[in-house]
Amino acid sequence: MTTVGGTLIVFEGVEGAGKTTQLHRLAARLAAAGVPCETFREPGGTALGDEIRRLLLDPARELTPRAEALLFMASRAELVERRLKPALAAGRIVLLDRFFLSTYAYQIFGRGLDEREVRAANMTATAGVVPQLTLLLRVSAEDGVARALQRGAPDRMEQAGAAFHARVSDAFTRFEHPLWQEAHPETGPILPIDADGSADEVEQRIAGALAEAIPALRGAVEGSRA
Amino acid sequence: MTTVGGTLIVFEGVEGAGKTTQLHRLAARLAAAGVPCETFREPGGTALGDEIRRLLLDPARELTPRAEALLFMASRAELVERRLKPALAAGRIVLLDRFFLSTYAYQIFGRGLDEREVRAANMTATAGVVPQLTLLLRVSAEDGVARALQRGAPDRMEQAGAAFHARVSDAFTRFEHPLWQEAHPETGPILPIDADGSADEVEQRIAGALAEAIPALRGAVEGSRA
Repeated sequence: MTTVGGTLIVFEGVEGAGKTTQLHRLAARLAAAGVPCETFREPGGTALGDEIRRLLLDPARELTPRAEALLFMASRAELVERRLKPALAAGRIVLLDRFFLSTYAYQIFGRGLDEREVRAANMTATAGVVPQLTLLLRVSAEDGVARALQRGAPDRMEQAGAAFHARVSDAFTRFEHPLWQEAHPETGPILPIDADGSADEVEQRIAGALAEAIPALRGAVEGSRA
Repeated sequence: MTTVGGTLIVFEGVEGAGKTTQLHRLAARLAAAGVPCETFREPGGTALGDEIRRLLLDPARELTPRAEALLFMASRAELVERRLKPALAAGRIVLLDRFFLSTYAYQIFGRGLDEREVRAANMTATAGVVPQLTLLLRVSAEDGVARALQRGAPDRMEQAGAAFHARVSDAFTRFEHPLWQEAHPETGPILPIDADGSADEVEQRIAGALAEAIPALRGAVEGSRA
């Protein structure tokens, strides 16, 4: 058993990129190697967060862009204080399905809110927590749409329209740029992952990338490789 | 009938200062003079705001200070966009029971959150709306406690303890200082009102102060004076 501690790994990307699937595959891979981890998703992860999730994703609800952004932040603040900080302080690995890059993509680029304002509110919500690594799953637009269509009824964010999702997709591409990352030190390192192809293929790519990016995890992610 | 337009008047002060009573008395006085106004309270005033109000005031719920602050902001953002901006654009008078001075008092001074962070998040929520006037109701501690005790079961904010409410009370005193106001231009003018004494007496003080502070309102607030 490898002991690896206090590591926050975030999965980001557009709808249908396979974030949730890959997050749980990595959790299973770590568990098989005897390395426990905790998994959370945004919005949610706490009692308040789950109520906020219901408000945010309800397709029948209309929200102003600012209220939407601040609700995401409130859910995040609660998750950071009650779940992430204690888990990281205890030296655990935390896998998180979306974090503030999604806010930047959906609320700044998608909804057009002021970047300075959203970043400042995010500073309140994250209270200094910076991911050790963000895996940014890239998927060609066709693959993403196809995967999203396989799911059930779209939630409020998924319903927001093609132009909105094109802006979000452009934003995630922008986040890969070193100059963007240099200007946004709060994000921590961002590692693009090619998420086209089968779930098995993507899982192997993620394991390889993680082994390289976080050497302490190498044994755990490579140990159970097929 | 006097036509007066696009005026946001905020009532602020500690628990039990008589804000809500005086707000509705002013609304009645304006109505009697043929001047319509709209009244709102924070948190609340919209469908989302009412759900957030329920979350925020539920005595059984524990919230981290940051999540609490951001929930107030989300409710505010929705109120500003859906209610305040349209009413003010239509030239109406809006009376508002608490606005961001309460956030500054309760979340910065009461909870100890970082002032820069809270002000930045508040900028997102208020989106440039500045009150024409804030009436800051001052009440001696004994009077306020006595009034608050006359009410039913305390909500989550009222329950927060004596030391918390002492810090909040100190904060409201601080807001009266011209140097504080100069450093916080987003608040607009703040007018302290002595709120000790009977509701009739306080109502007369408010009417007199308003007539002086907003000359366009003079006829309306003095017209129906007993």
